[in-house]
Amino acid sequence: MAAAEEGTAPPEGQVRVSETDRVKAFSDGVFAIVITLLVLELRVPDYHEGGLLTGLRHEGASYLAFVVSFGYIGVIWLNHHALIRLVRGTTLALNWINLTILFGAVIIPFPTAVLASAFTEGDSADQRAAVAFYALAAALMSAPWLAFFSYLHRHPTLRAREVGPEHVRNQRVRPVTGLILYGLSGLLGWFVDPVVGLIGIIVMIVYHAVTSEGLRAGPLGRLFPRGG
Amino acid sequence: MAAAEEGTAPPEGQVRVSETDRVKAFSDGVFAIVITLLVLELRVPDYHEGGLLTGLRHEGASYLAFVVSFGYIGVIWLNHHALIRLVRGTTLALNWINLTILFGAVIIPFPTAVLASAFTEGDSADQRAAVAFYALAAALMSAPWLAFFSYLHRHPTLRAREVGPEHVRNQRVRPVTGLILYGLSGLLGWFVDPVVGLIGIIVMIVYHAVTSEGLRAGPLGRLFPRGG
Amino acid sequence: MAAAEEGTAPPEGQVRVSETDRVKAFSDGVFAIVITLLVLELRVPDYHEGGLLTGLRHEGASYLAFVVSFGYIGVIWLNHHALIRLVRGTTLALNWINLTILFGAVIIPFPTAVLASAFTEGDSADQRAAVAFYALAAALMSAPWLAFFSYLHRHPTLRAREVGPEHVRNQRVRPVTGLILYGLSGLLGWFVDPVVGLIGIIVMIVYHAVTSEGLRAGPLGRLFPRGG
Amino acid sequence: MAAAEEGTAPPEGQVRVSETDRVKAFSDGVFAIVITLLVLELRVPDYHEGGLLTGLRHEGASYLAFVVSFGYIGVIWLNHHALIRLVRGTTLALNWINLTILFGAVIIPFPTAVLASAFTEGDSADQRAAVAFYALAAALMSAPWLAFFSYLHRHPTLRAREVGPEHVRNQRVRPVTGLILYGLSGLLGWFVDPVVGLIGIIVMIVYHAVTSEGLRAGPLGRLFPRGG
Repeated sequence: MAAAEEGTAPPEGQVRVSETDRVKAFSDGVFAIVITLLVLELRVPDYHEGGLLTGLRHEGASYLAFVVSFGYIGVIWLNHHALIRLVRGTTLALNWINLTILFGAVIIPFPTAVLASAFTEGDSADQRAAVAFYALAAALMSAPWLAFFSYLHRHPTLRAREVGPEHVRNQRVRPVTGLILYGLSGLLGWFVDPVVGLIGIIVMIVYHAVTSEGLRAGPLGRLFPRGG
Repeated sequence: MAAAEEGTAPPEGQVRVSETDRVKAFSDGVFAIVITLLVLELRVPDYHEGGLLTGLRHEGASYLAFVVSFGYIGVIWLNHHALIRLVRGTTLALNWINLTILFGAVIIPFPTAVLASAFTEGDSADQRAAVAFYALAAALMSAPWLAFFSYLHRHPTLRAREVGPEHVRNQRVRPVTGLILYGLSGLLGWFVDPVVGLIGIIVMIVYHAVTSEGLRAGPLGRLFPRGG
Repeated sequence: MAAAEEGTAPPEGQVRVSETDRVKAFSDGVFAIVITLLVLELRVPDYHEGGLLTGLRHEGASYLAFVVSFGYIGVIWLNHHALIRLVRGTTLALNWINLTILFGAVIIPFPTAVLASAFTEGDSADQRAAVAFYALAAALMSAPWLAFFSYLHRHPTLRAREVGPEHVRNQRVRPVTGLILYGLSGLLGWFVDPVVGLIGIIVMIVYHAVTSEGLRAGPLGRLFPRGG
Repeated sequence: MAAAEEGTAPPEGQVRVSETDRVKAFSDGVFAIVITLLVLELRVPDYHEGGLLTGLRHEGASYLAFVVSFGYIGVIWLNHHALIRLVRGTTLALNWINLTILFGAVIIPFPTAVLASAFTEGDSADQRAAVAFYALAAALMSAPWLAFFSYLHRHPTLRAREVGPEHVRNQRVRPVTGLILYGLSGLLGWFVDPVVGLIGIIVMIVYHAVTSEGLRAGPLGRLFPRGG
């Protein structure tokens, strides 16, 4: 279609639909930068002659945090990859929702650093504050995914051809699960024990890793996500 | 068309027209980097044991500045997204104009930092200087958008097929509004009150957010911009 | 094919295959950022009036390290370029393997910095530790390449049309060579002499440079790699 | 053509030709990052209350250096944009040449910083050294452009369809001019006067700006470059 070659589709009703190429390029750029900036945190330890190996071992915890953060941003990228595949075009509203999704990805290094700081240098009160802060950030991050799926559910003409309406409806389960369980993790961390809250957060990251390709309809599909 | 597959269209008169793919890729890269570099400003506060929550609350203003800057660069990206959709190809002159548009985006963190510094550490004279400096930067940023629309108006063969000549002509209202009202904000900030100038600047950011998809022709269109 | 235009191919068995465009964009973004961040290490030397030339000469070793690192990341990018050309689509499993490949590229500046530090400031024990650490990192980097070729060998439908099954099988020789010889270099560096280990590492970088386009079948092909 | 859709063209003789999409994406990423990293150099001046305006004026020279560097990298991007349009595919050799072109772009901030340092803090000997160093870097940057045009001249099948052989041959004039006149500027700066060398360098930047779209054949074409 000639209009598609020009990067613009004709308006539908009042909503202007355009291709997703720039949304993908911009989003991939943001994800690539966030995941690469993490390496700036890796530093050669200070050491006296003969003490390099000991120095590297002492920094082990911060290297582990780097690996976890790299994996977490990778998980979000895979989820975003699957998200954009659901639509055949984007609108101004979807672009704004996407910007808030990226906002959530961009801030990840910050609550992660607060958490690492609280568990290495802080006391129990700091750890409770850090877990609650992390849970708040995670809530911020789940909300725009719910907005994306809901918007797509209300605008079926934006769905990619091979995606069924019930598939989009099912995906809303994931950010709602995220909102509720990240919130619960924050409350558990604040009122019960920060480590309990932390375990809840890690469980949620793994949950988003295994469901990145989306949930399938039906009770089995909710247990066994798609993908190879 | 064979030539289009090779990434190059035949010359029109003396002007060589090429596809917009690299302009989009380069621009998206610049926007993605600027918006992500902002996170480098977010730092874990210094605190004594048990003081993390208080420390985070004290830094609240700088976190707010991060959110505003993220939104502002997002607004410029959306405007740029709509801008490139107006053309079916680019020329050397458009590439230079685009570079000056990107220049405006890249410097945003700097006048923002000057403004934040003046309102947290400076006196009234500093605040007046910072608002005037910000207004000067905003004028620099509006000028190339006017140049883009004017160039496109004079070279109708570069217009994307579904874009009418009157649409391009109408868009010139936006950067002219920006030039005049940012300038006025600077003068108000310098001669009257820095806070009055600041309010003018924030109003203009919101104006560019709601008109990112372009102004529609006619008096109603100027009030109600396109887009979903 | 309509489905391909939408960025999604129909599922094969249970595996969902999608286009490689976002994998390429994300990977290129990561490589471009890692290779450019290296320049942040280049600093104007401290000098007294008239001492700039001497100062620049003193920093010669760190400038050489910059050149080597730039070339190394370039080699990995060329290998990745040839790797992605082998497949006609990507799956969730390939995306995860690709993320671990990128992980290896992103950490390069860190073991390189440890190595440079050990050979300029450390003693023999530090140098042995640094060479062993580098060899460990190199093993981490070879493993996902082996996983990629093995996965592609087991899923022939993912192969690009012009790539034969024996070509994919042959490529597994390269990461296996990397795993064994990087490991051997680490053991030699730790137990014999760090310089011997270092020479082994440099030989392996050159090996990956000349075989970036892949090994050809047959004994001659293993000596004379493809490419122009 | 089916093979082209897969991102790979059939081999020609022994040389494997592939599409330029990843070369463009990787190069645009590098250019976008280098041009954006410059903003990290812009800092709010230290000032006492009421001294912000004075502080900003004092930093004027470094802000000018930022503008010049932004323009210079923009010029190289435009030249690269036109360079890639000359070819219909890339080979391993062209990829290596492109990496050395990017190397030249990535290091720009460094000799620029040395130059700025020498002219603000150094004496005449430092300035001579800095101008000679800058000229050496500029020679490094011109050489791979000559290699690119020469390789393309020797491999006419790689030329984009609408590009004539004499056009490619003519382009070699530009990097040769760069090599000779940057070298001459270095010698003039070292043996005569650093300011004379500096003027030569600035003239060369402007020369590459106005010839970014390539030289036209014939004596007039050499004076009046193509482009809009």
